[in-house]
Amino acid sequence: MTTTGRVRRAYARIEECDRPEVWITLRDREEVLADAARVDARAAAGADLPLAGLLVAVKDNIDVAGLPTTAACPAYAYTPGVSAPAVARLVAAGAIVLGKTNLDQFATGLVGTRSPYGVVRAVHDPELVSGGSSSGSAVAVALGIADLALGTDTAGSGRVPAAFQGIAGVKPTLGLVPTGGVVPAARPFDCVTVFAATVSLAQFAAHVLADPPERPWPPDAPLAAPPVPRIALPDRPLPELSPSWARAFQAAADRLAKAGAELVPIDVTPFLEAATLLYDGAFAAERYAAFGAFIDARPEEIDPSVRAIVTGARDIPAHRLAHDRDRLAGLRALAMERLTGLDALLLPTAPFQPGIAEVAADPIGVNSRLGVYTNFVNLLDLCAVAVPAGEADGGPFGVTLIGRPFADQVVADLARLLDPGPPVAPAAPALPLVVFGAHLSGQPLVVFGAHLSGQPLNHQLTAAGARLARGVRTAPEYRMYALGDRPGLVRDSAGGFSLEGELWLLPPAALGPFLHGLTAPMALGKVLLDDGSAVTGFVCETYAVADAPEISRFGSWLAYLAR
Amino acid sequence: MTTTGRVRRAYARIEECDRPEVWITLRDREEVLADAARVDARAAAGADLPLAGLLVAVKDNIDVAGLPTTAACPAYAYTPGVSAPAVARLVAAGAIVLGKTNLDQFATGLVGTRSPYGVVRAVHDPELVSGGSSSGSAVAVALGIADLALGTDTAGSGRVPAAFQGIAGVKPTLGLVPTGGVVPAARPFDCVTVFAATVSLAQFAAHVLADPPERPWPPDAPLAAPPVPRIALPDRPLPELSPSWARAFQAAADRLAKAGAELVPIDVTPFLEAATLLYDGAFAAERYAAFGAFIDARPEEIDPSVRAIVTGARDIPAHRLAHDRDRLAGLRALAMERLTGLDALLLPTAPFQPGIAEVAADPIGVNSRLGVYTNFVNLLDLCAVAVPAGEADGGPFGVTLIGRPFADQVVADLARLLDPGPPVAPAAPALPLVVFGAHLSGQPLVVFGAHLSGQPLNHQLTAAGARLARGVRTAPEYRMYALGDRPGLVRDSAGGFSLEGELWLLPPAALGPFLHGLTAPMALGKVLLDDGSAVTGFVCETYAVADAPEISRFGSWLAYLAR
Repeated sequence: MTTTGRVRRAYARIEECDRPEVWITLRDREEVLADAARVDARAAAGADLPLAGLLVAVKDNIDVAGLPTTAACPAYAYTPGVSAPAVARLVAAGAIVLGKTNLDQFATGLVGTRSPYGVVRAVHDPELVSGGSSSGSAVAVALGIADLALGTDTAGSGRVPAAFQGIAGVKPTLGLVPTGGVVPAARPFDCVTVFAATVSLAQFAAHVLADPPERPWPPDAPLAAPPVPRIALPDRPLPELSPSWARAFQAAADRLAKAGAELVPIDVTPFLEAATLLYDGAFAAERYAAFGAFIDARPEEIDPSVRAIVTGARDIPAHRLAHDRDRLAGLRALAMERLTGLDALLLPTAPFQPGIAEVAADPIGVNSRLGVYTNFVNLLDLCAVAVPAGEADGGPFGVTLIGRPFADQVVADLARLLDPGPPVAPAAPALPLVVFGAHLSGQPLVVFGAHLSGQPLNHQLTAAGARLARGVRTAPEYRMYALGDRPGLVRDSAGGFSLEGELWLLPPAALGPFLHGLTAPMALGKVLLDDGSAVTGFVCETYAVADAPEISRFGSWLAYLAR
Repeated sequence: MTTTGRVRRAYARIEECDRPEVWITLRDREEVLADAARVDARAAAGADLPLAGLLVAVKDNIDVAGLPTTAACPAYAYTPGVSAPAVARLVAAGAIVLGKTNLDQFATGLVGTRSPYGVVRAVHDPELVSGGSSSGSAVAVALGIADLALGTDTAGSGRVPAAFQGIAGVKPTLGLVPTGGVVPAARPFDCVTVFAATVSLAQFAAHVLADPPERPWPPDAPLAAPPVPRIALPDRPLPELSPSWARAFQAAADRLAKAGAELVPIDVTPFLEAATLLYDGAFAAERYAAFGAFIDARPEEIDPSVRAIVTGARDIPAHRLAHDRDRLAGLRALAMERLTGLDALLLPTAPFQPGIAEVAADPIGVNSRLGVYTNFVNLLDLCAVAVPAGEADGGPFGVTLIGRPFADQVVADLARLLDPGPPVAPAAPALPLVVFGAHLSGQPLVVFGAHLSGQPLNHQLTAAGARLARGVRTAPEYRMYALGDRPGLVRDSAGGFSLEGELWLLPPAALGPFLHGLTAPMALGKVLLDDGSAVTGFVCETYAVADAPEISRFGSWLAYLAR
């Protein structure tokens, strides 16, 4: 389908599903069609547009040039002349903005009800809340209107609405995606996030959003989850968790175990304790710092819950903020200790999905209970992917995989175990699976023997966060010799064989220790592949093969082993 | 001299120089002699004691088991049962604690006068202040009593007293040295530091203090200053700088240029602006968070300047702290931009050395002017080495080399250009030069050709932060061939030559890109050295040497080039 066709279908869908509360500003259909025609023309002309034709909804606390930014507060509205970098990157990649979506005012809430633009209802049950604060964005994706939607996430706003709508939400490591042009909520903990129907599409978009990253990838950032991931989960019943959601959580954990993960019960107390600091402690003053002066000036324009939370933080003394920050640092040290040797933490994304009436009766109390499993993630500088994981109470249920900073690819790989959907929305153009950050930092290494997948030394690669890229063949200029439990590859430029191996990507910091661990006669040099490229890989010093049997005719070490 | 002999001499020196204000608690001589005898016995028995026989003075806000910790406030005193990790590490390495030294109360000051234990006078002129807050520690070293002294540094307390006493002060990157058992001043910016007569000795002690580091070394931390360092310095006259000190600063810069550095004038405004945030902004609340409750409870026990600063911060609101932190982040981004492509920033350590009477007349004002070149360093997460650099006004003058976080070895190398003293105090046992952090992270690489010092590709190593360890020889099992502008080394286990090369240490993250940049037939494998060790190094694929002339008989690539 052409992009113009997809735009027409999206506007028809908007009409048909009658959820006006999703949008604060919906762009004029004809303007969007004109954008779509331009994208189609550029794509036809061969432009590199990895997101060509994908339709995007943008949370209305993120600037889109020429559309008002309201943060769900009409009195706060301004019309920016330039788009936030996050929006600009999607558009530069060929995506098309449909409009701006409803949210809990000033992104303060997890419910989707704190907005003068209407309560955003859950996609499967209009009596339930949609979750917030990125409520409209999540519902726009769940309704099939938008392929992608931008959210923001401080307390869980990019994850809770994903869970309540049965879609995926990627919350990258803080700082990867620029937060310029975003109305701040609690600045050190604010993160731009992305929703999509599948983890793969959301991750691909996150990869575009984070290129280049505003906070650099460290050279040891892992490029893959290991083949037998070790996933932490709570070692005792979680607070607030509804019984049916507890059963759905157990089922999700069982699916991960069945998919090959090792589940490791841990004490999650430090995580849950950190969560309480976001609103109950001095960090509430971050919100006052962000937009408190506006609230003081225009109190009558503010949602009562938002006003109560923010003005209540006006007089918190600075020494209490210092104290809470130190307490948080202590909890983070404990939490990181709990995660030692583990690849991720699995939690339900939220404990239950409340009704709109229930929230209206106790707006701050219910909201606060909703954030028990999400509030700590940005406070502790973690990354997370919220992924659908079956059903509970007749609606969607979701879990979140939470990882160390820069383990974005690890949690995405693990989330994909629960959501093996295609890398893109079915109707969208096919996209390659892109490893988050790897195109920036992954160092290629071709292996031919004991480091191949399933072979005895393969763990040296996977433990370092390496990722299998693909099988490769050398140019027909090599000979292979059997040196006991490993092959030796020697170039013979006068003739030879095309031999099979695997191309891996390694975090650059992993190569040093890897090289350090090599023993003679193995060396890392340049291997000529059959496509003419020269890639770093295993070669063998010739002195060692003098008396070794040549096994080139098998074509690969595995074929020789299977002889 | 035996350690007991050194202790006797130290106590004689204490008597002779009559500076009782240096010490808050001086240990009993007989107890220290007993410690010394034990160290001598352990050293004689072959124990690995890298600091054996060195005498240490400890600032009295750092715990030493069994001695009171006062923070220069008698009412605050407590006697810890265990030593701070920093102290314990020095003692475990064979150092001996002489006692606890005087300081500006609660480490709040840069003058050395804010103490009920007496004003600490400058070592060369008793009318001048010694600088603070680590006043007693710096003077104990400058008087030749202690070989090493521990200080702490939030605003410059580990650097200003070094400058005023003509000694070296190493302020490591925040977090490398544990701050456990240290009375906090402004917790996120507190750092344990070390004074010694020379940069080399101070750095060696810092290396012991930081092993293992509490904040891990990143895999790309540089292990050396480059051969032609690029050193930033202010592009316009500095505020507060006295004319004679300005001349001395220019002379120090000239010496660095003469030693091979390229001096690059930059706009240091973001650094100086950040400095003003430490006391003039909301960060003063950090001190209230650290010990404000004590001051409120016992106001009469507190130095009036310290009390005014800290109680004045009691009611600063948290949102202002959030705001100042964001402002600091913005200034840091600017400051880091200014340092792009540069190895360090050179500044005078302080603008002038005031008289004791001058400080008494305006205790807060003079103190505040003293910190203009130091206050920003911890706020901006930088490391620094204060080094003596000639004289001004008949007393010592000092400059500071300031580097990015984890550039500790870079700034130490650069400081050593101004202070080419022996690696240890003349009377102390000989110590090897240890590269800060390298024993933890340096990856060895043996090179034989174009990567040797002075050769065309050597910059690939130095630009990545690599460090030359030493010259090496291979086992007599190699042959060298001339491949145009580079040699190829091929192992011949049946015979061959012992060939000369260089052993370099690389940051582990540097090996990946280095390997990536190699071209065939070069490879990195294990090279057997003449001491029997096998070290990662350059080897050559044999196919490429078939028609190349063998040059093994020259013994090295350099000898071949010089043929």
